[in-house]
Amino acid sequence: MSHSPLIQELIDALCCLPGVGPKSAQRMAYYLLERDRDGARAMATSLVAAADNIGHCTECRTFTEAELCDVCASNRRDRSLLCIVEMPTDAHALEQSTGYKGLYYILMGHLSPLDGIGPEDVGLDQLAIKLDEGEVKELIVATNSTVEGEATAHYIAELARARDINVSRIAHGIPLGGELEYVDGQTLFHAFSGRRQL
Amino acid sequence: MSHSPLIQELIDALCCLPGVGPKSAQRMAYYLLERDRDGARAMATSLVAAADNIGHCTECRTFTEAELCDVCASNRRDRSLLCIVEMPTDAHALEQSTGYKGLYYILMGHLSPLDGIGPEDVGLDQLAIKLDEGEVKELIVATNSTVEGEATAHYIAELARARDINVSRIAHGIPLGGELEYVDGQTLFHAFSGRRQL
Repeated sequence: MSHSPLIQELIDALCCLPGVGPKSAQRMAYYLLERDRDGARAMATSLVAAADNIGHCTECRTFTEAELCDVCASNRRDRSLLCIVEMPTDAHALEQSTGYKGLYYILMGHLSPLDGIGPEDVGLDQLAIKLDEGEVKELIVATNSTVEGEATAHYIAELARARDINVSRIAHGIPLGGELEYVDGQTLFHAFSGRRQL
Repeated sequence: MSHSPLIQELIDALCCLPGVGPKSAQRMAYYLLERDRDGARAMATSLVAAADNIGHCTECRTFTEAELCDVCASNRRDRSLLCIVEMPTDAHALEQSTGYKGLYYILMGHLSPLDGIGPEDVGLDQLAIKLDEGEVKELIVATNSTVEGEATAHYIAELARARDINVSRIAHGIPLGGELEYVDGQTLFHAFSGRRQL
């Protein structure tokens, strides 16, 4: 008993979701057919609407269907502060957990010369132009603490220094609630050498 | 930085998939926007096609867009053998791992009086009529080895005995409480070939 052609097509289509293999896709397909056909139709509508209408914010490069995202369009944000992150989800996480009231700039990736990803591919040329305009007084670099994220942070720091703009990097150390014994050596090294006066 | 309305809608829609919470849905939404908008559109088409066109096989009750599924429509199957399973995925798993050449009957669930699911809700009235027709000489009951699956198996055994039809249950090589769909092929093969008289 093989899947009928339409079901097989649906399973193959669901496999393009990240983290979804043939077994989960099969489970999802049968679940939707059995219990939630309206949900399936609504999902289809949302997928098409998103794929067709969502572009990038002209200021910060995040995904949005408008010309400006809600943060860039707001008049309650401090425009002299700019926080640079790799992905929209990073900005989203910072927004939920910190009281940050400045603007964001989303690279949509990180520098990775080996993969042919240079400064213009992650909007760093556009960032340089923005910094030249003089409105930004402080940069906060919140790229990931991976090799590529660090390299990107260094590149951004150079851009800022050349323009005499204050630039800082979010702190790396032991996560709150984490136990020293189980923290990896790299993190411990950063936490130790980056210790602060009490 | 909150999600734009269209992105939030997409995330909410993806949450209706089984096993997908807000975090995974967010990851899926951004993945599709970033790397696979064509995949998203194809998924939408498949979802609508499936939701609108897939019904049940008139013989075995499995999901299909045709009147008969490929197994019921085939003239190479032994119509005197009928294997009863809970879900289409169960029949699919048996088909891939065993050499079974008879037909299937898919309950689309199991008896569960506490949830108000009686014999007619899982097609057991239709099964009784099919057994009355006299073409089926042997029943193989492959419901899950859960409490409900066992109760359903007993009910089916009564139906068969009342009509002098040979009835067997797949062997309990399957771990108790386990679901058929996720058992490995070898175990499934042994369980199937080692079925015992009820």
